[in-house]
Amino acid sequence: MISPGELIQLVSPQGKKYLRILTPGEELHTHDGKIELSPITEMGFGEVVYTHLGRPYRIIRPTLYDIIKNIHRRTQIIYPKDIGYIVMRLGIGPGRRVVEAGCGSGALTTAFAYLVGDNGRVHSFERREDFVKLCEDNLRRCGLRNRVELYHRDIAQGFSMEEADAGFLDVRTPWEYLKEFAQAVKNGSPVGFLLPTTNQVSMLLTSLEGSVFVDVEVVEILLRRYKPNAQRLRPEDRMVAHTGFLIFARVSK
Amino acid sequence: MISPGELIQLVSPQGKKYLRILTPGEELHTHDGKIELSPITEMGFGEVVYTHLGRPYRIIRPTLYDIIKNIHRRTQIIYPKDIGYIVMRLGIGPGRRVVEAGCGSGALTTAFAYLVGDNGRVHSFERREDFVKLCEDNLRRCGLRNRVELYHRDIAQGFSMEEADAGFLDVRTPWEYLKEFAQAVKNGSPVGFLLPTTNQVSMLLTSLEGSVFVDVEVVEILLRRYKPNAQRLRPEDRMVAHTGFLIFARVSK
Amino acid sequence: MISPGELIQLVSPQGKKYLRILTPGEELHTHDGKIELSPITEMGFGEVVYTHLGRPYRIIRPTLYDIIKNIHRRTQIIYPKDIGYIVMRLGIGPGRRVVEAGCGSGALTTAFAYLVGDNGRVHSFERREDFVKLCEDNLRRCGLRNRVELYHRDIAQGFSMEEADAGFLDVRTPWEYLKEFAQAVKNGSPVGFLLPTTNQVSMLLTSLEGSVFVDVEVVEILLRRYKPNAQRLRPEDRMVAHTGFLIFARVSK
Amino acid sequence: MISPGELIQLVSPQGKKYLRILTPGEELHTHDGKIELSPITEMGFGEVVYTHLGRPYRIIRPTLYDIIKNIHRRTQIIYPKDIGYIVMRLGIGPGRRVVEAGCGSGALTTAFAYLVGDNGRVHSFERREDFVKLCEDNLRRCGLRNRVELYHRDIAQGFSMEEADAGFLDVRTPWEYLKEFAQAVKNGSPVGFLLPTTNQVSMLLTSLEGSVFVDVEVVEILLRRYKPNAQRLRPEDRMVAHTGFLIFARVSK
Repeated sequence: MISPGELIQLVSPQGKKYLRILTPGEELHTHDGKIELSPITEMGFGEVVYTHLGRPYRIIRPTLYDIIKNIHRRTQIIYPKDIGYIVMRLGIGPGRRVVEAGCGSGALTTAFAYLVGDNGRVHSFERREDFVKLCEDNLRRCGLRNRVELYHRDIAQGFSMEEADAGFLDVRTPWEYLKEFAQAVKNGSPVGFLLPTTNQVSMLLTSLEGSVFVDVEVVEILLRRYKPNAQRLRPEDRMVAHTGFLIFARVSK
Repeated sequence: MISPGELIQLVSPQGKKYLRILTPGEELHTHDGKIELSPITEMGFGEVVYTHLGRPYRIIRPTLYDIIKNIHRRTQIIYPKDIGYIVMRLGIGPGRRVVEAGCGSGALTTAFAYLVGDNGRVHSFERREDFVKLCEDNLRRCGLRNRVELYHRDIAQGFSMEEADAGFLDVRTPWEYLKEFAQAVKNGSPVGFLLPTTNQVSMLLTSLEGSVFVDVEVVEILLRRYKPNAQRLRPEDRMVAHTGFLIFARVSK
Repeated sequence: MISPGELIQLVSPQGKKYLRILTPGEELHTHDGKIELSPITEMGFGEVVYTHLGRPYRIIRPTLYDIIKNIHRRTQIIYPKDIGYIVMRLGIGPGRRVVEAGCGSGALTTAFAYLVGDNGRVHSFERREDFVKLCEDNLRRCGLRNRVELYHRDIAQGFSMEEADAGFLDVRTPWEYLKEFAQAVKNGSPVGFLLPTTNQVSMLLTSLEGSVFVDVEVVEILLRRYKPNAQRLRPEDRMVAHTGFLIFARVSK
Repeated sequence: MISPGELIQLVSPQGKKYLRILTPGEELHTHDGKIELSPITEMGFGEVVYTHLGRPYRIIRPTLYDIIKNIHRRTQIIYPKDIGYIVMRLGIGPGRRVVEAGCGSGALTTAFAYLVGDNGRVHSFERREDFVKLCEDNLRRCGLRNRVELYHRDIAQGFSMEEADAGFLDVRTPWEYLKEFAQAVKNGSPVGFLLPTTNQVSMLLTSLEGSVFVDVEVVEILLRRYKPNAQRLRPEDRMVAHTGFLIFARVSK
């Protein structure tokens, strides 16, 4: 049975997806009619619920990928292909304490919150108030708000925390905050950066030289889709060719 | 303080890494002398421990990436770039129940175990006994053995389980086990496959047509490394050009 | 001085390009007014001609790339990135005698004709009459018609020629014409194929096994563009991810 | 019949290739015995000649690709994948007059010489005397020496020529020679540059801004090989991930 407060996804017969927190008493309005959410608390994932017009909607548990795609965005969000690798390199998982700055719409924040579980914690810093609100809304919509400390704060003033297990900066000039960033994470911790241009990567690498950030790695992740046609298998005609460069390092104070 | 049983990584002054479960009473033997593990239980991640010859070793918490790279392998293991995306697409996270077949050396098993946390569960099926042993050893070495049910079993006889939240098949002929695979996961669940050749992808796609596996996606993840040289930034000369094709679908029984 | 009959390109102040054969007595009509072509026969490449409204148009010699981009198309044409590699692998150059089938709009035909010079010859076979006409028009528009023998003919009936130095097939089922193809080229000659799907590549490879076609190579050429911004250098967001697979071999009868 | 002075390639039964200028009176020494070249003047491409031990060698006409691979090198040479695209973008073909600097081992020089034919001309500048010699040797070995003007000269002193149809610079700091380079080519001509690092590309782009070099394009060409196995078609495990960035522009004085 699905508990109230859990995140669910309702899939229409046509494949349209609705992401909701299971809140007894609420209704979902669809083109196929409305669905009362209360009865779902007595059902399980994989089962079918009907609209008041009798249309079947499948109840499924959204994946992290589904959740990220569902984020309301006013910025370019980090792509799943990049998030997957970031998570691996930073060792994000149950119980971890992560710090990040430049939340934007909150895609990475969401992924971190999803993965650290109830015993972990995400500390997110954002300078723009509208983004803090947006990020907060997005986290609330997928039931992950309680795992995140959101700070409306310019990290130039320092991160008001220490001892994170891992850190990530998605800001335009990360080289300006290296000292503060290093202080926010435990010694030995993995950290990452996302930058769109080669000039920024060079700037950051220059600043990392001789700093407490060691074992530097610069990578780009590319995702190539194929048309899923058994008899005519081939890559899709077009692809996203660039989202950003990922830079990883380890803090060695 | 680090608890006995936790996974730690000791890093030598030269950057050599040793992955160990923190076991009081045990010693780590290095080229720089031996290190007693007991005192580490009174220390924290990021601190330094000394060998009996006085060489400083940093105690760090290994990331999932570190753990995967440390796996003893007798098979080609799934690459971190692929694991990261698989995890996103399958919604692996704290509390999830995952089924997989074709563990091989156990890289993906390890990643799943790391991410599902203490409340989650990984059910892993492997036909070859030597691989079951190898996978078991690898899981034990990184302290994740207790999160995994390892079955030495040919999945042609069916998965002896049901209701997994997600599933993954890394076997040569996945199309032969689709019925059994669909039974092992909850309705609506995300599943994935890894296949090295285009012929296999076509075979699988043919079998998926008209089946309970819907929303099929075929992708390839490419990782391009750059030389981390600020003044001479450029991609590395060579790269791993292909590891495998990833196929994802959702079960709609 | 530019001779009548030469191919010229007139570039407007805004960068709009007009490709024309220099034909004394003719006029070019532009948004900036008309340009008489006759005086250009007394001018040289790189000079400027004026419209009757006094707007300056630069006279330049079109590159093969310009010519290919200017082709009127009713089919997907072969991309410059692919043509460049095909030309290298087939040894196309002054004096060569090339055979090809499946001209389509004639992009590859044009490239071959451009490169073989006045002493070379391109033999092009096409089954559809409308494509023969289109190809002919395109060749005429860039002054290369006289270097090409165009055949409206199904190659299943055999190529009515022999002793080509190189050959290329851009047809859907090249494996059906291998015997005829081998007869059309000299022993030892390089040949190539373009195929969009992996299934077709497998079909062709199967047919090539044990045939007179040896030294088989399968490649894909990818072109990644960068935004030419000195301060913000980065790959473009999107790219053409797939045009086709190129297969090369040598005939060893 | 093959004329004395033509470039031929002799292929052993095992596929080993020997590139030679057909010189009556000379012999080719192979592991299978020696081959007299004189009789080949009465034979044609595709035919077989025998060593004095009776082993059959196929006489084939080398492609440009074969010739480039055969170049004796003491520098990193430009790859065929890059040469193919350069040739297209610069409009190299029969009768063209091309200027280039930084010949190195002469791979691009060779390609240009091959394609411009007997009526074209390649003007090649190289600062290092040993490279001039190497380039000269390579050109001589493939019978293309007579199409190239080789200058042992630092282009900082200016190119001692004008009116080239196209130009290419493969030097470390091309931005230092832009004025001289622009003078060496006709107005409106296409030019290109090869640079290995992003920093150099940014430097060049900065210098091109506001200069006579317009319509700037920055690209990278990637070649992905596939294992030519019909039943197990897949990309090769490793690939050359980076050779250099290609920058193209047009001179508009």
